[in-house]
Amino acid sequence: MLDLDTTRDRANYSLEDMDRNSLFHPLTPIALHQQNGPKIMAAAQGVRLRDHAGREMLDCSGGLWCVNIGYGRPEIAAAASKAILDLNYWHLFGSSSNEMTIRLADRVLNLLHDHAGARHLKRVFFGTSGSDANDTNYKLVRYYANLRGVPEKRKIISRKGGYHGLTAAAATLTGIEAYHTAWSLPSTDVIHAECPHQYRFGLPGESEAAYCDRLIADIEQIIAREGPETIGAFIAEPIMGTGGVLIPPAGYFERVQKLLDQHDILLIADEVITGFGRTGEWFGSGLFGLKPDLLTLAKGLTSAYFPVSASVVSERIWKVLEAASPEHGPVMHGFTYSGHPVGAAIAMANLDIMESEGMVANSAEVGAYLLENLKARIGDHPYVGDVRGRGLMIGVEFMADRETRKPFAASQNAHRLVANQAVEHGLMVRALPFLEVVAFSPPLCITKSDCDEAVDRFAQALDATTPALRQLART
Amino acid sequence: MLDLDTTRDRANYSLEDMDRNSLFHPLTPIALHQQNGPKIMAAAQGVRLRDHAGREMLDCSGGLWCVNIGYGRPEIAAAASKAILDLNYWHLFGSSSNEMTIRLADRVLNLLHDHAGARHLKRVFFGTSGSDANDTNYKLVRYYANLRGVPEKRKIISRKGGYHGLTAAAATLTGIEAYHTAWSLPSTDVIHAECPHQYRFGLPGESEAAYCDRLIADIEQIIAREGPETIGAFIAEPIMGTGGVLIPPAGYFERVQKLLDQHDILLIADEVITGFGRTGEWFGSGLFGLKPDLLTLAKGLTSAYFPVSASVVSERIWKVLEAASPEHGPVMHGFTYSGHPVGAAIAMANLDIMESEGMVANSAEVGAYLLENLKARIGDHPYVGDVRGRGLMIGVEFMADRETRKPFAASQNAHRLVANQAVEHGLMVRALPFLEVVAFSPPLCITKSDCDEAVDRFAQALDATTPALRQLART
Repeated sequence: MLDLDTTRDRANYSLEDMDRNSLFHPLTPIALHQQNGPKIMAAAQGVRLRDHAGREMLDCSGGLWCVNIGYGRPEIAAAASKAILDLNYWHLFGSSSNEMTIRLADRVLNLLHDHAGARHLKRVFFGTSGSDANDTNYKLVRYYANLRGVPEKRKIISRKGGYHGLTAAAATLTGIEAYHTAWSLPSTDVIHAECPHQYRFGLPGESEAAYCDRLIADIEQIIAREGPETIGAFIAEPIMGTGGVLIPPAGYFERVQKLLDQHDILLIADEVITGFGRTGEWFGSGLFGLKPDLLTLAKGLTSAYFPVSASVVSERIWKVLEAASPEHGPVMHGFTYSGHPVGAAIAMANLDIMESEGMVANSAEVGAYLLENLKARIGDHPYVGDVRGRGLMIGVEFMADRETRKPFAASQNAHRLVANQAVEHGLMVRALPFLEVVAFSPPLCITKSDCDEAVDRFAQALDATTPALRQLART
Repeated sequence: MLDLDTTRDRANYSLEDMDRNSLFHPLTPIALHQQNGPKIMAAAQGVRLRDHAGREMLDCSGGLWCVNIGYGRPEIAAAASKAILDLNYWHLFGSSSNEMTIRLADRVLNLLHDHAGARHLKRVFFGTSGSDANDTNYKLVRYYANLRGVPEKRKIISRKGGYHGLTAAAATLTGIEAYHTAWSLPSTDVIHAECPHQYRFGLPGESEAAYCDRLIADIEQIIAREGPETIGAFIAEPIMGTGGVLIPPAGYFERVQKLLDQHDILLIADEVITGFGRTGEWFGSGLFGLKPDLLTLAKGLTSAYFPVSASVVSERIWKVLEAASPEHGPVMHGFTYSGHPVGAAIAMANLDIMESEGMVANSAEVGAYLLENLKARIGDHPYVGDVRGRGLMIGVEFMADRETRKPFAASQNAHRLVANQAVEHGLMVRALPFLEVVAFSPPLCITKSDCDEAVDRFAQALDATTPALRQLART
C-alpha cells in the first residue's frame, strides 16, 4: 500500500494544492475543481478502494468499467516486472515483432473464435486506448473503401447514445451531444441513428416488435437518404455502456446485420466495455450473434493494468488489404506503442487469471444476483424507473415520475446526487452522461456477499437522497 | 532474458507462423510480411538488443526514438511492481486523482520551467501516445476558439515533413503525403507550410537568411490567404524527426513566433521526439527559445516503458478554459488512461534515472562525439549528402549525386538498403519515410565506445551497400 509522507505533504505544499496547480483533469469542471480540489485515491485491493484520507470504499465502478480481474494482483506485478527485464519495449513497425504480442494476438483470436463464434476475425491491430482503436477503425473504413475503388463509400452510421471514445474521429462517432458541443464536432462522414432503448424512447403502448421496426426503418431511411454507395460502416456497442447500459430490443441486431449485408456495409462492434466477461459472456458479439468486420477491444483486455487496445479485422477486410499490398506498400498507420511487449505480457497474465478463476461465469452468476437484489431492494422506489443489465453491467435509471416515465431534467443531474451520496456511504458507482443512469460495473471477482453490501449501501444512499430527488421532481 | 520454449515453438506452430496468422503490423507491407515473416526481438539490455535467432545488435534507433534511459532497467521494474501493488489503476475523471500523477504533472512543469524557460506553461493533460496528445491539441484549438467566441479561428498551420501522429486528426496535422494517400486525408482545417530544410529545399546560392525569408513569406501568405481570423494555431517540432532530423535555418522560430503573436495564433510545440534530452537539452523549446501555448510530450517521458503522453497547456489557454467553466461545465474530453498511476510511477522513476545519471548532458556530449565521428568517417562518401543533428538526434541524408544535390528517387528507397545492411552488421538504425535519411537516436546512456562501434558498423554497412547505391544513382 502507498506510503504517504503526510507530514511533509500537508505541512508544506499539499498534494491537493499540487493537483490544483498542475493537473488538467479530463471530464471535470475546472472552476469547481479549483474550488473543491481533487479526490485522491491512494490504494486498491480486490474490489476495495482506499482514498488519501483513509476512507474505504467498495468499488462497483471497476474504475471506468475496466478493472475486470480486480485491483492489486501480485501475478500482474510479477508479469510486468519480468516483461520489463526481458524486453521493456520494441515496436511492430516494418515487420518487427515480439513474442508476447504474437501470443496475445493469437489468444485474442482464439477467444473470439471459441466464445463469439467469430472464426471470420483474422488479424489484430494493437493500440493503447479504445479511442485510438476506434480511430483506427474510422481510418480503416476509408482505407478499405479506397483500396476497393469506391472512395465515396466511407460514411459511418453510429447511434445516438453510443460512446466510441474521444479522439476527434472517435468523438465524431460518439453519439452523445455533450461531447460535441463547444468542440466543433461531429465532423463530416458520420450520421447518428436512433438510440435503441425502449424504456425511454419507445412510444406509449408500442410493442417491442413495433419499436424494433421503427429503429430499423430509421436506419433504412438513413441509408436511402445518403445512398448506400456512400455508407461504409455501421458502428455499435452490443450493449451501450456510457449511454446508460442500454439493451436493444429483441431481433434488433439480426435485422441490422441483414440490412448491412444487403447494402455491403461493414459492421464495427465496439466491445471496449462488453468484451472480456463484462456481460457474463466473453464478448457481447456472442450474446447477440453479431458477425462484425471490425471489433474494438480495450479495458478488460488488460483489466486497466496497462494501456492496450485492439482493432480486430475480419477476413474480408484483410483479403482486400493483402491484395492491395503490392501496389500500396506498407499500411501507413500505427502507433509507437502498437503491440507493446509489456502490455502484451500483462494482458496474457490477465487472461490467465480470468480463465483460471472462472471470472466470466462469475460475472454471469453474481451479475444476475446483483441485478435481482437491486430490483428487489430499490425497484419500487418512487424515483427509480428501470433496473436492467447483463452480467456485471447494470444500470439504474432514475425518473422524476415513474408512472408517466417523465425524466428528470438533464441539468438537474438527479442521478449524480445519488452516486455522490453512495460514495459517502462507502460505495463507488458512476453517474453516466447521457441519461439519468447510475452504472454498476464492479470487478468480475466480486462476490455475492460484496453485492449484498453494495445493495445495502446503495439503498441507504438512495434513502438519504430521496428528499432532494422529491424536490427536483417537483420543479 | 526471455526464455523461449524453442522446441515446442519450432516443432509445431512457429512464432513466425503465429505472427503471420494473427498480427496486423503497423507500417508494414502485408504481402511482403506474409512472405518473409516477422523479425522477432527477444531481449534487450542497456543499448543492446538480441533477436529471436540469438543475433545481438547495438541499438542506435532507441526503439522509435523513445527508449531514452536504455533497456531493462531494474529500477523501472521495481517501480512498476510497487505501483501495481499500491494502486494499479484509477482515473482522473470528475476531479478524481492519484498521488503519482499529481507529482508527475508538477515535475514536468518544473522541468519545463527550469530547462525551457517556460514558466507560462501551467497544466498537464495526460494521455497514452503522442498521437492522442496531438489529437487533444487539435481539439483544444477548436475548444479555445469556441470559448472565446471566435469559432472560425480553428485552422492549424502545420509543415510539410512534420510528423504529429496517426489518429485521423493527428495524421491530418502530419505533413507527409505517404500517410495521407489512400486514407482520404488530410481532412479540413489544416494547411501545410513549407518544410524548413535548406540542404534539400534551399535554392542554389541562396543564403541562409534569404532561405529563412522565403519560409516566413510562405507562412505570411498562408495567413493572408486564409485570413488570420481563421487560423487558430501553428504546430511544429523544434527539430523535425520523422521528416529527416531537419534543423530550421537561424532565426526561423523567432520570426515564426513574432508572426504568430501578431495574428493571435497559438504555437503548438511537438516535443514527442525532442523532449527529455534527445537533442542534448531537456527540451527542444529551450534550444530555440520557443514560447509554446501547447506542448506535446510522449516517448522520453517514460522511455517507452509504459504508454504515457502529455499535452501541456499555457496560462493564456488555461485562463480562458477556467473562465468559461461555470457556463460550460466539465471539459468533455479525456481518456480512460489519462493519468494512469502506474505510468506516472514509471515516468517518475525514469526521470530519476535521467537526472541522477546526467543523461541530458551525456546526450549533448556523446551526441557531438557521434556526429563528429560520423562526419569524419562517412561525410565524404559519394552518396552521403549531409550529416547533421543535435545531441543524440542525428540524420544521415543520402544523395544520388552529392555535387548537384540530386536526390535518389523516393521509390528507390536507397537509404533503406543502407539501414537494412546495418542490421546485418549488428547495428539498428532507422530509415525515415519522407526524405532519404537514416536516423541515429540511441538511448541517451550510450557511451563514446559504443559510438565508435556504431560508426564502424555503419561505415561497413555503407561500404557493403555502395555498389547497389551506385547502381541506383545511375538509373
